[in-house]
Amino acid sequence: MESDISYPRSPIGALRGRIGERVRIAGLIDAIRDHKRVQFLVVRDASGVVQVVREKMPGDAGEEPLTACSAVEIIGAVRDAPSVRLGGLELAADELRVHSLAASPLPIAAASVLEKQIDHRQISLRRPDQQLILAVQTTLEHAMRHWWAREGFTEIHSPKLMATFSESGADAFAVKYFGRSAFLAQSPQFYKQMAIAGGIEKVFEIGPAFRAEPSFTARHETEFTSIDMEVAWIETHDDLLRLEEEWLAAAIAAVAGRHGAEIAALLGVEIAIPTSPFPRVTMEEAQAIVRASGHMPAKTDDLDPEGERRLSAHIADTFGHEFVFVTDYPATARPFYHHRHDARPDLTRSFDLLFRGIEVTTGAQREHRYDVLRAQALERGYALEPLQSYLDFFRYGCPPHGGMGVGLARLLMALLHRQSVREVTLLSRSPTRLTP
Amino acid sequence: MESDISYPRSPIGALRGRIGERVRIAGLIDAIRDHKRVQFLVVRDASGVVQVVREKMPGDAGEEPLTACSAVEIIGAVRDAPSVRLGGLELAADELRVHSLAASPLPIAAASVLEKQIDHRQISLRRPDQQLILAVQTTLEHAMRHWWAREGFTEIHSPKLMATFSESGADAFAVKYFGRSAFLAQSPQFYKQMAIAGGIEKVFEIGPAFRAEPSFTARHETEFTSIDMEVAWIETHDDLLRLEEEWLAAAIAAVAGRHGAEIAALLGVEIAIPTSPFPRVTMEEAQAIVRASGHMPAKTDDLDPEGERRLSAHIADTFGHEFVFVTDYPATARPFYHHRHDARPDLTRSFDLLFRGIEVTTGAQREHRYDVLRAQALERGYALEPLQSYLDFFRYGCPPHGGMGVGLARLLMALLHRQSVREVTLLSRSPTRLTP
Repeated sequence: MESDISYPRSPIGALRGRIGERVRIAGLIDAIRDHKRVQFLVVRDASGVVQVVREKMPGDAGEEPLTACSAVEIIGAVRDAPSVRLGGLELAADELRVHSLAASPLPIAAASVLEKQIDHRQISLRRPDQQLILAVQTTLEHAMRHWWAREGFTEIHSPKLMATFSESGADAFAVKYFGRSAFLAQSPQFYKQMAIAGGIEKVFEIGPAFRAEPSFTARHETEFTSIDMEVAWIETHDDLLRLEEEWLAAAIAAVAGRHGAEIAALLGVEIAIPTSPFPRVTMEEAQAIVRASGHMPAKTDDLDPEGERRLSAHIADTFGHEFVFVTDYPATARPFYHHRHDARPDLTRSFDLLFRGIEVTTGAQREHRYDVLRAQALERGYALEPLQSYLDFFRYGCPPHGGMGVGLARLLMALLHRQSVREVTLLSRSPTRLTP
Repeated sequence: MESDISYPRSPIGALRGRIGERVRIAGLIDAIRDHKRVQFLVVRDASGVVQVVREKMPGDAGEEPLTACSAVEIIGAVRDAPSVRLGGLELAADELRVHSLAASPLPIAAASVLEKQIDHRQISLRRPDQQLILAVQTTLEHAMRHWWAREGFTEIHSPKLMATFSESGADAFAVKYFGRSAFLAQSPQFYKQMAIAGGIEKVFEIGPAFRAEPSFTARHETEFTSIDMEVAWIETHDDLLRLEEEWLAAAIAAVAGRHGAEIAALLGVEIAIPTSPFPRVTMEEAQAIVRASGHMPAKTDDLDPEGERRLSAHIADTFGHEFVFVTDYPATARPFYHHRHDARPDLTRSFDLLFRGIEVTTGAQREHRYDVLRAQALERGYALEPLQSYLDFFRYGCPPHGGMGVGLARLLMALLHRQSVREVTLLSRSPTRLTP
């Protein structure tokens, strides 16, 4: 094969235009069918899939038998073959080079349970639906970044190693750090606010966040990708709602435009571009809707997962919308740094965004006034000393500001109608899983 | 001021077009000069800076005095003022609202040492050179992503919590993980290779990496942003060199185009778009060049920092180029998973990229053949059991592939002629620094 390196590699997806030509392809073997005199291979690369037919040579007896999943390079002639289901063509191989022979049998099959699929991710990732999910993720993030670039946002990379917790201490991972303890950031919250105090008026970050929660649900991972933004000089959290609906609609439109047909074909899901404005209800209204549906929420200041599903179902029935903003959470349900309503200091200028019953965003206007922020921390009974590095961000002038955190996997899970974040995550991390 | 909310906020940079109009601006106070009857404020927002003149009112005596760094909103008339150095205009304020009064005095001044500037990052970040550096970073990454999107790369987010080390065990941070130990990823190396085995032919990731090295140099941080890519079906590492020079030239061209003039004005640096091909030398040649310059490298299979500087100086003198690829490192200087030369198994198909004397990239073709990879691990004396999860990536078929890791801060440091990665990092992390 080295001798034929002069043939540039042809993408499999483009072979239709090369009928009658000799081409070189390279890919992974999806399936093998052995007949008496010929062998059929289904070979896949990033661009498509093709049937390869290969005459068995007398010398083949001495060869190690070819196995499914192996990485191969093939030279041969492309010929029209209307009877072949894969694109109505086939490649008649005259040279084949095995770059990596897959062990056999494979440890998983298409029907293996999710945890097995995760155990052998290098195999399950090859499934077309999994390739599609990663392509959708790439397009979604690229469209988000395109929107941010157009709106003048600055990208930051905030540290994940911290001297203190960014949310509650209970679910912070501790790291041995040169004879003392560091903690893994549960969110970039403090640092995007620091950037705002530092004069960057619009910031975003996409990066890992860590939560040491011993929970096993379809929506929690100990490590997840968090999409964060923060904006200065807002009037209230309403500005953030308008911003998020415009940003999300743009990102979802990009996914629909680029992958809509494939998502429908492979996942059976119709991607709807949400119309703006998204429906909005206050937490007080949300509680009434959920109770009227016959479910008693566990708390009066927050929604439980069942309450979130019922609220979304009600909104879908009433407004035909897959999204709903829940606003004005009681202060008791939110962190101390959320901005309160002037006339109702028991309520925060905050919101969650639910998408098909799943909480995908938490956001708020933040308290930017040093004295008020300090008082709100004291009201919670917090010691100020561990918070001082954070409080200092607001001591030397800070504009009014607010922002949000969006869970990437939850967004993909809701968008693609999957049952668990683990179906849309490259490599899952749970209390019992650190591999592969 | 609430009453005048109807004035939309005007970007300060656009006031030249609003002469004679009444406008509302919002920003941070850069400086204050008090005269007998008037007060001059220099106010900055993300778009520019303006002088504001404000008549002192009889009631002002009772007011808390305005301080530098405070966040303010101002309504007033824009007037032409050719004598004013800041853009030849000024804003005559008639309403001022202080959103956040900065404490005084400030804990740092422009002349404070770097460590002090980092201690009070919310203040030092406001310096125009620091705002520019973050804008350059944003543009640089956006251009890289644009190139990747055009070339069909897939974005991944690989886990930072691992059951084992990704490089050497010596500098891995340990995390308490539900009664056992996890380790923080030193690079996404293993997982981008898993994605390749999983059929994704071109992947990239920008994310944090962690090294528990107790070193204090201008080029090391315990946490840094790593830019990684990996590509399937390469012939040799030469393909990666060609890819990187095209990608870097595109990213640097975007920075030059968008920020070139401001970089020249604020940092005194001329951004040169590198011409391709970049000069290439083998490690053997590099050693000879460095020795001929009168420096004895500490090792014969690698370059020390002084050697890197001398090699880059030689290349700049000889070829007028700021970059140089050093290729073909001896196997002794590289990880076990680097691919060897067929005819010279003591040499790897590897490279580093030096930029103005600083190593900014390490890359290689990887060994994709399970048996060879296993043998190379054994040759190093490694126990196979902790590596098995990694080795398994190559058991079920994997294409030939290779990739690289690029240090974002090192790249910015070299590009902008800074003395330390800490000058181009949002928040530094060193063995003695976890705050702010």
